[in-house]
Amino acid sequence: MPLTPEQQAEIDALRAAPRQTLRTVSEGMEAHLYTPAPVLDHGFVRVVDYMGDDAAICQAARVSYGRGTKSVSNDTGLIRYLMRHWHSTPFEMCEVKFHVKLPVFVARQWIRHRTANVNEYSARYSILDREFYIPRAQDLAAQSTTNNQGRGDVLTGDEAERVLRILKDDAGRAYDHYEQMIGQEGQQGLARELARMNLPANIYTQWYWKVDLHNLFHFLRLRADAHAQYEIRVYAEAICAMVRDWVPAAYAAFEDYRLGGATLSAAALECIRRMLKGEEVTQETSGMSKGEWREFMGVIEG
Amino acid sequence: MPLTPEQQAEIDALRAAPRQTLRTVSEGMEAHLYTPAPVLDHGFVRVVDYMGDDAAICQAARVSYGRGTKSVSNDTGLIRYLMRHWHSTPFEMCEVKFHVKLPVFVARQWIRHRTANVNEYSARYSILDREFYIPRAQDLAAQSTTNNQGRGDVLTGDEAERVLRILKDDAGRAYDHYEQMIGQEGQQGLARELARMNLPANIYTQWYWKVDLHNLFHFLRLRADAHAQYEIRVYAEAICAMVRDWVPAAYAAFEDYRLGGATLSAAALECIRRMLKGEEVTQETSGMSKGEWREFMGVIEG
Amino acid sequence: MPLTPEQQAEIDALRAAPRQTLRTVSEGMEAHLYTPAPVLDHGFVRVVDYMGDDAAICQAARVSYGRGTKSVSNDTGLIRYLMRHWHSTPFEMCEVKFHVKLPVFVARQWIRHRTANVNEYSARYSILDREFYIPRAQDLAAQSTTNNQGRGDVLTGDEAERVLRILKDDAGRAYDHYEQMIGQEGQQGLARELARMNLPANIYTQWYWKVDLHNLFHFLRLRADAHAQYEIRVYAEAICAMVRDWVPAAYAAFEDYRLGGATLSAAALECIRRMLKGEEVTQETSGMSKGEWREFMGVIEG
Amino acid sequence: MPLTPEQQAEIDALRAAPRQTLRTVSEGMEAHLYTPAPVLDHGFVRVVDYMGDDAAICQAARVSYGRGTKSVSNDTGLIRYLMRHWHSTPFEMCEVKFHVKLPVFVARQWIRHRTANVNEYSARYSILDREFYIPRAQDLAAQSTTNNQGRGDVLTGDEAERVLRILKDDAGRAYDHYEQMIGQEGQQGLARELARMNLPANIYTQWYWKVDLHNLFHFLRLRADAHAQYEIRVYAEAICAMVRDWVPAAYAAFEDYRLGGATLSAAALECIRRMLKGEEVTQETSGMSKGEWREFMGVIEG
Repeated sequence: MPLTPEQQAEIDALRAAPRQTLRTVSEGMEAHLYTPAPVLDHGFVRVVDYMGDDAAICQAARVSYGRGTKSVSNDTGLIRYLMRHWHSTPFEMCEVKFHVKLPVFVARQWIRHRTANVNEYSARYSILDREFYIPRAQDLAAQSTTNNQGRGDVLTGDEAERVLRILKDDAGRAYDHYEQMIGQEGQQGLARELARMNLPANIYTQWYWKVDLHNLFHFLRLRADAHAQYEIRVYAEAICAMVRDWVPAAYAAFEDYRLGGATLSAAALECIRRMLKGEEVTQETSGMSKGEWREFMGVIEG
Repeated sequence: MPLTPEQQAEIDALRAAPRQTLRTVSEGMEAHLYTPAPVLDHGFVRVVDYMGDDAAICQAARVSYGRGTKSVSNDTGLIRYLMRHWHSTPFEMCEVKFHVKLPVFVARQWIRHRTANVNEYSARYSILDREFYIPRAQDLAAQSTTNNQGRGDVLTGDEAERVLRILKDDAGRAYDHYEQMIGQEGQQGLARELARMNLPANIYTQWYWKVDLHNLFHFLRLRADAHAQYEIRVYAEAICAMVRDWVPAAYAAFEDYRLGGATLSAAALECIRRMLKGEEVTQETSGMSKGEWREFMGVIEG
Repeated sequence: MPLTPEQQAEIDALRAAPRQTLRTVSEGMEAHLYTPAPVLDHGFVRVVDYMGDDAAICQAARVSYGRGTKSVSNDTGLIRYLMRHWHSTPFEMCEVKFHVKLPVFVARQWIRHRTANVNEYSARYSILDREFYIPRAQDLAAQSTTNNQGRGDVLTGDEAERVLRILKDDAGRAYDHYEQMIGQEGQQGLARELARMNLPANIYTQWYWKVDLHNLFHFLRLRADAHAQYEIRVYAEAICAMVRDWVPAAYAAFEDYRLGGATLSAAALECIRRMLKGEEVTQETSGMSKGEWREFMGVIEG
Repeated sequence: MPLTPEQQAEIDALRAAPRQTLRTVSEGMEAHLYTPAPVLDHGFVRVVDYMGDDAAICQAARVSYGRGTKSVSNDTGLIRYLMRHWHSTPFEMCEVKFHVKLPVFVARQWIRHRTANVNEYSARYSILDREFYIPRAQDLAAQSTTNNQGRGDVLTGDEAERVLRILKDDAGRAYDHYEQMIGQEGQQGLARELARMNLPANIYTQWYWKVDLHNLFHFLRLRADAHAQYEIRVYAEAICAMVRDWVPAAYAAFEDYRLGGATLSAAALECIRRMLKGEEVTQETSGMSKGEWREFMGVIEG
């Protein structure tokens, strides 16, 4: 169960008591507020607060471009224009705050996105709970044989069993020892800030994470991507589902220009031009390395 | 008149139509929403949106410090503790967005605070309005004779009149010429992005400015300070009045620890210790330079 | 003359006295050090200091990817890989510091790039020099008739003369009045922080600007672009020439993937796939708006 | 042994081959270049590169304040003035890059300082080494009985032995299992990005960390402080020793105004004023809470 009874009670109370505001309201996001979306075995993402909507993006853009934006007939068109031309500042005018529960090794990747505000549960001050991420059988992947950072086939049989047993046993034992070390019955009890060093990276932590929409899109482009590690990608996908309801026009533009788009090099563009004129282009005549050519083929073959 | 009729109509419509939300609501800030506070002769600040309140600061802090915060009996005490110990991340969990109209030379100081989001009216795309900041008689100060960045006495008599006439005439003429250059009657008309270079730094611009509470406090500490230039200080003071109503406990802590507080050096602290023991300490025996001693005297004499 | 005699003397002294260091040295950049590249009529860019080179980028990448980078045979290939896959952090390991003299309206665009360090000449403390940007005849462009932010044909004849006369006269008069207002002969003299408001946006300012290579590339992509205003583009181009000599491999990758590349949307990629299969695709059948289609044609027709 | 033989060979080669540069050189820092300072049982900090020195800080300040800085007679005085008045931008003109080897739980605290550039060893791509932080006997502290985040007395006797045995055994076993899971003899081998989740937070990682001097001072103020966790404080202290030699004047100002200084609230300043007039002030009559009063006493009693 991802939420404690106390957290659930707080959420229920908040959801039961809507209040009046003069601010911009996104009905799509109101439906998500405080409702945790479960992720992995014990994790979740829930929206705690948000600022702005599609109209707020356009409002900010129209301050910048003034009468210059009159020619773009409607908000959707304006938002697509902004996304296409990398005009990022209007998207920065929307902000969102999530409460996330996630394994420490996922948190370590996530925190590398620096342009965000974070308050994480502190294991210096407080005692961590006995909750560890243990992958499902279908997520226990082998090391890729072709890609240093990728996953290959799913482990099977004895090997899968051995791995699961190790992960469960080591996590359980590490937590037992953590409790023994900090315990104060008949002993002084090790400082929490030291005892935590015994806990493995699949233990869960939690944090409040606040970010503007431009930087959130940047995070989602990298982390909802097929090359991202599965365990962070599922968080990114849960957030995508919320952002789609929060700012539908901006999210659609993001899907078209970023998630589904691709950046092509000058060399790649030149190849496309030659191909469209009917020329047969091969890796050897493309001017690209083998790796680039393989990626290029992936893009133009879809 | 700081707002155009169109802007005022938009504001009136928005104020007339409160909506329901599940988000945190600050009643004090709702009263300010969309209501422009006039600043200088044509400028204003108005709150366009906000996220969070005093409780949101504590909520984030309690995630970080978990059970460790139980000992602090209430939210006000916790907020004072956070401010005193420079725990800035919980304050970053609140966000606010302002629409500001301000002279360009003020905008140039303001923008140096980098950790904020900005959409400014673009004079590349659009035509600036004929509105210039002309100081009131009582704000026409002479150069300080003791301080390179300070102001001295107020100008009087002929000198004051000459200065005002110059500022008004030059601004009017520059704007006439701006219009002539971009005009397209019987000529091509200079590009806006070039014509704007003729306009002086007291012309008004406007922008949306969005910032988190921690960085806003940093801005206010520097710009609501007595040493800040008067023309930006009045904006900071207008914002202070809104923040006081938005997050009363955080603002009170900010006033006590930042606006009204002082940072003393190791040398200054040592002097205080000696003085409290009854020793007579002078600049010569203090280990401080004359400048530091003068500032130190200012602090301990109040 | 862009540099004062004092500045030139300082530069000459520094260039005459090389010192020994154990740090990474980029011979290409050493040749640029302290040598101002003239820009516009009174401006310049000069490199004041730098950290790192192509090898430093690879060194940082190899810490991150460890044995995983063994497969990329050489530094150039590794740098291209990093650029292609948006691995920005190794590029952040290089840093550069410029001294720039530039018109205020250019400075106002430039400063919007927030991830940089800046120390600007302060007109609160000091007196600005009588130097204004006056465009050359061939840079006096008309407003574009098709694009709100663009330039059209060059102004000619009487119109060009009128514009130039206005710009020169107004700048000269504004500066005369600035001097009169701050003068202290027979009067108190207006505070500098107030008097500066009378100066137009084509007056020159100067600053130290320090930035990492990743963020510099971002700046250059936007500002060395054909859509950037000419007056900032010439600064970006002067910097490009220095960066090319500083980090040749990284600059070549930047040229191929960013300056010469293009980001295509999912819709545009789908059109290319259909076209490569021999289908005739028109704007109507493309799923793109007219504006997008026009831009897409621009990309694939080169 | 903190460095691998390959790393040591690279360092020796670099130290043996000084090169010429026109850049600013800090002799004090050259002596530290590439020389790792050992920290904890397997960690280190070494300077990889730096930009600027005390003179560079003054150079940037003099661009900003122009003739306004003439009155400050020398560089040391100017640097003290800048530090005292929170003029942070000149300090941002210096940059430094460290290579650090540190336990993961220290890295997790460190990374919260966002305004820096980082390239960390990736356990997705590469295999971590078998190196764990095991505290020395004298660093095995009990939980503080008065402070949720503090340490109390050192553990003794059986308890200390039990804790050390747990930490060593669990680390060793976790690493054995890590190797078993990723091994490919007779099995597929678990993906590295998954296997790493079994490793505890005292395993060592390493990174390149680049930061400007202003933000470094902020880091050092918080992490070289007596309240910081011992295991990060020793890294901060090792860095302090390098910075002292790199920018002696700036470091001395930092020590006086930040490390040795204190920020007093308006209430605390008022108490000092009353005390200096001879009044007996107690916590009850001070207007401060018990916690604040205790901290205040700590400051004025030294």
